[in-house]
Amino acid sequence: MEFLVRTENQLPEDTPDDVRKRLRAGERERAQQLRDAGILKRLWRVPGRNATVGLYEAADATELHDALTSLPMWKWMDVSVEALATHPQERAPS
Amino acid sequence: MEFLVRTENQLPEDTPDDVRKRLRAGERERAQQLRDAGILKRLWRVPGRNATVGLYEAADATELHDALTSLPMWKWMDVSVEALATHPQERAPS
Amino acid sequence: MEFLVRTENQLPEDTPDDVRKRLRAGERERAQQLRDAGILKRLWRVPGRNATVGLYEAADATELHDALTSLPMWKWMDVSVEALATHPQERAPS
Amino acid sequence: MEFLVRTENQLPEDTPDDVRKRLRAGERERAQQLRDAGILKRLWRVPGRNATVGLYEAADATELHDALTSLPMWKWMDVSVEALATHPQERAPS
Amino acid sequence: MEFLVRTENQLPEDTPDDVRKRLRAGERERAQQLRDAGILKRLWRVPGRNATVGLYEAADATELHDALTSLPMWKWMDVSVEALATHPQERAPS
Amino acid sequence: MEFLVRTENQLPEDTPDDVRKRLRAGERERAQQLRDAGILKRLWRVPGRNATVGLYEAADATELHDALTSLPMWKWMDVSVEALATHPQERAPS
Amino acid sequence: MEFLVRTENQLPEDTPDDVRKRLRAGERERAQQLRDAGILKRLWRVPGRNATVGLYEAADATELHDALTSLPMWKWMDVSVEALATHPQERAPS
Amino acid sequence: MEFLVRTENQLPEDTPDDVRKRLRAGERERAQQLRDAGILKRLWRVPGRNATVGLYEAADATELHDALTSLPMWKWMDVSVEALATHPQERAPS
Amino acid sequence: MEFLVRTENQLPEDTPDDVRKRLRAGERERAQQLRDAGILKRLWRVPGRNATVGLYEAADATELHDALTSLPMWKWMDVSVEALATHPQERAPS
Amino acid sequence: MEFLVRTENQLPEDTPDDVRKRLRAGERERAQQLRDAGILKRLWRVPGRNATVGLYEAADATELHDALTSLPMWKWMDVSVEALATHPQERAPS
Repeated sequence: MEFLVRTENQLPEDTPDDVRKRLRAGERERAQQLRDAGILKRLWRVPGRNATVGLYEAADATELHDALTSLPMWKWMDVSVEALATHPQERAPS
Repeated sequence: MEFLVRTENQLPEDTPDDVRKRLRAGERERAQQLRDAGILKRLWRVPGRNATVGLYEAADATELHDALTSLPMWKWMDVSVEALATHPQERAPS
Repeated sequence: MEFLVRTENQLPEDTPDDVRKRLRAGERERAQQLRDAGILKRLWRVPGRNATVGLYEAADATELHDALTSLPMWKWMDVSVEALATHPQERAPS
Repeated sequence: MEFLVRTENQLPEDTPDDVRKRLRAGERERAQQLRDAGILKRLWRVPGRNATVGLYEAADATELHDALTSLPMWKWMDVSVEALATHPQERAPS
Repeated sequence: MEFLVRTENQLPEDTPDDVRKRLRAGERERAQQLRDAGILKRLWRVPGRNATVGLYEAADATELHDALTSLPMWKWMDVSVEALATHPQERAPS
Repeated sequence: MEFLVRTENQLPEDTPDDVRKRLRAGERERAQQLRDAGILKRLWRVPGRNATVGLYEAADATELHDALTSLPMWKWMDVSVEALATHPQERAPS
Repeated sequence: MEFLVRTENQLPEDTPDDVRKRLRAGERERAQQLRDAGILKRLWRVPGRNATVGLYEAADATELHDALTSLPMWKWMDVSVEALATHPQERAPS
Repeated sequence: MEFLVRTENQLPEDTPDDVRKRLRAGERERAQQLRDAGILKRLWRVPGRNATVGLYEAADATELHDALTSLPMWKWMDVSVEALATHPQERAPS
Repeated sequence: MEFLVRTENQLPEDTPDDVRKRLRAGERERAQQLRDAGILKRLWRVPGRNATVGLYEAADATELHDALTSLPMWKWMDVSVEALATHPQERAPS
Repeated sequence: MEFLVRTENQLPEDTPDDVRKRLRAGERERAQQLRDAGILKRLWRVPGRNATVGLYEAADATELHDALTSLPMWKWMDVSVEALATHPQERAPS
């Protein structure tokens, strides 16, 4: 099942550069793992903002929650999730 | 997976009584079938409104969409769906 | 009477781990007491967020307020309450 | 238990005067019955609008819903309900 | 003239207990004075929140403002005021 | 006591020209009476809209409501009222 | 450049079945053409609603507008468009 | 003085084609006159919508209102206006 | 040209009394200058809040911006501006 | 392709004057470079606020994002972007 996930990164401006750098590296690494696992399918930047729109696939909302909270930046992210249903135009013929 | 579903019934006020009656009977019958199938688990009335809050369980958002659109009143309902994750306090011990 | 209760946990990010741990343990213990008392009936995680949706049963809004404010995390929670009426489909036959 | 109830009257402008008159008379009569029963305690006009704020008392949200839907104008009213808890300053000394 | 007044108490969580205690005592004392003066007529707790709904009576918005700002907690309260008109059902017969 | 009053005129587009003309004439006449009575003090056009912002003075919200509903266009107007308090800079010296 | 596009279908309920059928067939055909042209990349159903979320790719907002207005249902659709930027994680290495 | 003006065209779907055509032609002609007069400076299409964003210049909000209401489509347009101030970067050196 | 201006004062609660006093005195003095210059025409207190509604007159939005930012409290004020057009009822006869 | 870009500057009030000055100088310099490159076409001040509305032109949302984040103040700016399509009245004749 697919989900549309929005995140706003609210890491304080005065976070030391090395902390920020380490968080970003960890974020990128964990995101790649979620991509490899087929959970994170696409990720976009919201123009002008430290924010993203992502397309995720997970068995259910609980598995999605576990994936999102595994991101090192999660504690500082405002996240909203929207469940998506398959559109008839994309349903496999039965 | 569980979902919280809100509906607002917007059937026009001038709907003839027999049409309304038939729709309500069909609605109640279909709702009972969804209960028997374990899809509709709880249904509440929003006090003062022709509206409901429901707790549904479905494999995914597509199965939920099919269940909701199978309700005879669906065409006149404004529906919003919220995906729910299992809370740690209710997760089965592994 | 049943209520739908939403909470957003706003405990500051820089809360020391031991304080956070103690609060969580107290929260879980108090929640279990509210479950045993039949006040807290279901609890869900809002996916992606440190937030919950809960189904409570209480004599009235005052008893519910007392239950919610008895939670150790309450001071840091943004809470909103919605009163629910029994749906005709679930009313006991008279 | 007390509730704050807001209503917006959306009866169409082109409702014939006699229908409107009959509805208003019925509304006033039913409201008086709810006052006599101790369910409707206060009613205010929202200035400039065909809208009201009311203070109701009922055993629970279901009894309140039954009271509100018994008003002849209910079908044309947009209603929202807010549950109120007793404030400590007004709790009876135990 | 009556007013509906909502308050959200935003006193910081880390306010020392003795300060909080003194503020609460002062708040309760001043509220009692406003009740005695017939300005504060009813006060409810918004369930789950450190917030109130109040029914006030004052000559006009200026007298109401003076009453609200005389509360010791006012500096930390987010307040919104709604003017209420007398409903025809409650107007004295002329 | 002064009030800020917003109105949106929602007279249907297909209102016959003579009806519209008669309503406008009546509106202007009644507005002039309210000006003469000192109730309507200023009126502005919201640029680009069939809407107004007005400054009214009335004994209380009930007198204001009576003034607003005496306008021939009232039935088609969406009205919102905001109570204003005297600013210390404009209070008469005592 | 990619865009996230939301649509709410507001075709009146009383649209004759044959008109609706013809519109749906035309919609599906045109959507397939937009897929073949690489403009419509993914389409989801918003669960419970006659609404979609779509992922489009177009040279700019003008080309996207032309694609959307070429859909036979467009006249009855409430559409909102969000521009998406490439996320650093998905930028091609230079 | 410059203004940002948003319009949403709400001409009913069932408007006869010849009426719509005549309105559009008149709209385009009047818009050209406003361009020639230096009042309408830029006009954009909101992608996916029958809506525009426009940049206008007028002596004040009253002159702008007169310009907007002179458009043949105005009666069916939902319009909102935002006053713009000159940015220091664009102020003429004094 | 007239403008309706709303301000919310967000000076931190822990501002020392002498700083606050000095700012208020400066604010009152500058406001009086703007009144003398015919720019600030009326000022109201929003009841219950540290907020104002003001009626300003300025050549354009740039002059208004300069007036508002000349207030000593401006840095701590959340300000919103609404352009007002002359209502036909108040237009001078030509 | 053109974009409408809104920014709210949220630089903390207690930023030292020299830091603020340096940021402003850098902002102005970078803005001039974006103007020279044809990316920043117009910039307005939102009256009464430390906020701007800007008209940008960029190949796509990614190039726009890079331009916006190159501004020294970007870290403290709340930015929102709206994609604009060419209006038929301004399309070049083909």
